Amino acid sequence: MVALPIAFVEELSALLGDGWSASDADRSAHGTDNSRRTALPDAVAKPRTREQVQAIVRACAAHRVPIVARGSGTSSTGAALPTAGGVAVSFERMNRIVDIRAEDRIAIVEPGVLNGELQQALKPHGLFWPPDPASAELCTVGGNLACNAGGPHTVKYGATRDNVLGLSAITGTGDLIHCGSATTKNSTGYDLTHLLIGSEGTLGLIVEATLKLAPLPPHRASLRALYADVASAAAATARIMAQPNTPAMLEFMDSACIKLARDVGGADIPDAGALLMIEADGDAATLPHAVAVLAQAARGAGLLSLDTAPDEIASEKLWAARKALSPALRSIAPGKINEDVVVPVSRIPELVDGIQALAREFDLPIVAFGHAGNGNLHANILYDPDDAGQDARAQAALPRLFALTLELGGTLSGEHGIGLAKRDFMARAYDAPTLAAMRAVKAAFDPNGLLNPGKVLP
Amino acid sequence: MVALPIAFVEELSALLGDGWSASDADRSAHGTDNSRRTALPDAVAKPRTREQVQAIVRACAAHRVPIVARGSGTSSTGAALPTAGGVAVSFERMNRIVDIRAEDRIAIVEPGVLNGELQQALKPHGLFWPPDPASAELCTVGGNLACNAGGPHTVKYGATRDNVLGLSAITGTGDLIHCGSATTKNSTGYDLTHLLIGSEGTLGLIVEATLKLAPLPPHRASLRALYADVASAAAATARIMAQPNTPAMLEFMDSACIKLARDVGGADIPDAGALLMIEADGDAATLPHAVAVLAQAARGAGLLSLDTAPDEIASEKLWAARKALSPALRSIAPGKINEDVVVPVSRIPELVDGIQALAREFDLPIVAFGHAGNGNLHANILYDPDDAGQDARAQAALPRLFALTLELGGTLSGEHGIGLAKRDFMARAYDAPTLAAMRAVKAAFDPNGLLNPGKVLP
Repeated sequence: MVALPIAFVEELSALLGDGWSASDADRSAHGTDNSRRTALPDAVAKPRTREQVQAIVRACAAHRVPIVARGSGTSSTGAALPTAGGVAVSFERMNRIVDIRAEDRIAIVEPGVLNGELQQALKPHGLFWPPDPASAELCTVGGNLACNAGGPHTVKYGATRDNVLGLSAITGTGDLIHCGSATTKNSTGYDLTHLLIGSEGTLGLIVEATLKLAPLPPHRASLRALYADVASAAAATARIMAQPNTPAMLEFMDSACIKLARDVGGADIPDAGALLMIEADGDAATLPHAVAVLAQAARGAGLLSLDTAPDEIASEKLWAARKALSPALRSIAPGKINEDVVVPVSRIPELVDGIQALAREFDLPIVAFGHAGNGNLHANILYDPDDAGQDARAQAALPRLFALTLELGGTLSGEHGIGLAKRDFMARAYDAPTLAAMRAVKAAFDPNGLLNPGKVLP
Repeated sequence: MVALPIAFVEELSALLGDGWSASDADRSAHGTDNSRRTALPDAVAKPRTREQVQAIVRACAAHRVPIVARGSGTSSTGAALPTAGGVAVSFERMNRIVDIRAEDRIAIVEPGVLNGELQQALKPHGLFWPPDPASAELCTVGGNLACNAGGPHTVKYGATRDNVLGLSAITGTGDLIHCGSATTKNSTGYDLTHLLIGSEGTLGLIVEATLKLAPLPPHRASLRALYADVASAAAATARIMAQPNTPAMLEFMDSACIKLARDVGGADIPDAGALLMIEADGDAATLPHAVAVLAQAARGAGLLSLDTAPDEIASEKLWAARKALSPALRSIAPGKINEDVVVPVSRIPELVDGIQALAREFDLPIVAFGHAGNGNLHANILYDPDDAGQDARAQAALPRLFALTLELGGTLSGEHGIGLAKRDFMARAYDAPTLAAMRAVKAAFDPNGLLNPGKVLP
């Protein structure tokens, strides 16, 4: 931490009024996230307009002060922590839904709008924005853009990057740029839109986004399939994904998760080697057919039982085991490292086998669940951070999990991003020339290295 | 044109053997494209491996020789023309389908494979790669990647950028980089994959691509709707796109196209203000429902007639008017400027009205047809290039078409790219800071400015 230059503080406090604070309370409130790390900013800025964001970035550039953009702080990677001090830019006052154009299936929003708020506003139009992270009620669209957030519906509707058409952003030099367009096709020059998405505030501060919306399906139905082993569930996943009725969700739980959901979470579910939860969505007229097709694909060697729920109310009961899991995980261990590794669907069995081998080797519960249709599994290492031995074993298991994922042709993160937590593993995911290209892109947008320094790139 | 350095020629001819040529025949064959412009390279290289591509780029970098990557030369923008001379790198010998992994729904290909060849290879697996430009039988996947090609199925399945998971490429410094992964989710660092797609060979030479495949729908059905005017057809387009049964195609023809298809192309079609061709795809069990839903959405004020074809054979007849159009266009004027502007769907009527006003003002036939569901219309200015007056009027109408598109919140290109043809209009599509950011990205990948110089950026 360095003291902020007096001229800089005077300029920004004059500009922002009560949107500028260096109080301990504000600094503390903007110095943590869901990674449970802490790093305080020297000051907090709460701009109301893009012009104010631009002025903040220009002042920071002039005085070489680091800038960290911030939504709700739900990141589990430490991406929003001001580890180099400087100014935390909170977008809580830039939270307007600027426009919803139903006939063009787009919404124009400021970054501070909450994902859940946006979905509520879209519902009367019969539309939704597909990214649906577990934190949807709390997290901002800006945060979703920053880490390329996903969620269970990604298997059918895509993640954040697949559902954004255009962005306005302030680069590290304080320039306001406009990428993309309000159209669903664009071959006009370089695609800076997708580049900024997932760059975790290291290339620019997004001040407005043009989102691609999808029609809200009127009906949903669920299937729950239990399998003898992971290989059978993975084979079923491949069968499900090979036919044209793409499920709206295709979620996986391993045997350890099933056991936890029952024994700790109280769910009414028998023992099994693996579970798939499948959601179909669509018209009342065709939903039964979609369910039948998905059930057919779910059937095969190793299937123990298959239950279907034709409507939302019956679905609730089937989803009980999945819903019991998260509280169960919290109750059995005070700490967890929740990763979001991705592998090709065909490699899921090897990933889960490998995770179980790591659990035995490091003598810690490691459970796997998540988005089977995308091969995106949450590997949760459960441990007690106050137990030095457990902590050391958990930290030692983590690089082995990443190494396993990469060996299987996978990648480090499917929806959480890199932040601080996985930064030092980037050199395993990408070779030196590819990292050099990423660094060159970083320098192109942020020549002074002031935007979220120390994140993403090792 | 400058003479190539002797040491450079010796190095590359030794490396490439018969894959190196400076013959007039080879230079001519690699000096034109579908833009009907001509610019000869000084030599032609036909590498067989990524290592050879890397060696070519390194030699070019050492000797400051321009490099233009080339597929089949079907671009209509002049993107593949070596306007600064140097080496044309043809990927005709790097045309292998490296792997098809059906259970992961991916294909790994070299850039020289033809789009149509790839589709044939995927068919037995029940899969396809969605980009379907009109030139699919002739054009290469590498060319599709270069310009972010689309086609009629983009409305449901996305364009090239939406259907690629990873790339290997040689940057302007001769570095081999690997972007993305063989997974359908990726939040691991900067998205260089989507950045390279659509960059028209100005940022790197793609040597391998990991493509995202889709399940081939078993059945198709078509609808043909005629409307009194464009506004009615556009309103129907918005209704069709607002419900969850997204059509597999949603194609538009204006009244001038309908007239041409009938009077010149011989199609059996009555006069109308506009036409929509709609395709549904899916299972035999649900296709009739999809057709019914799409028909319902197509109905509304201004509908003159609605015909449905329940299967492929009946569909052929309905599509006759659309198929008669392209030959009809060729026969009535020796030259055409075929643009691919995009506007938000709600602005289609204003775009078509504006195009008709330009046709009157410049006294030339200008017709509009194309991908209504994406607001991506082909505006064809029909003229005789040998008639100085017509040529001048056609060239004068073009900037007005782009200005109109941009005024309507649209963009210059939806699937053809920028190349030479639209390069000088980029400064109208993007403001100076955004173009500066694109130039900085260009400098990051190609500091010597040797990759396809003079394209995309003004």
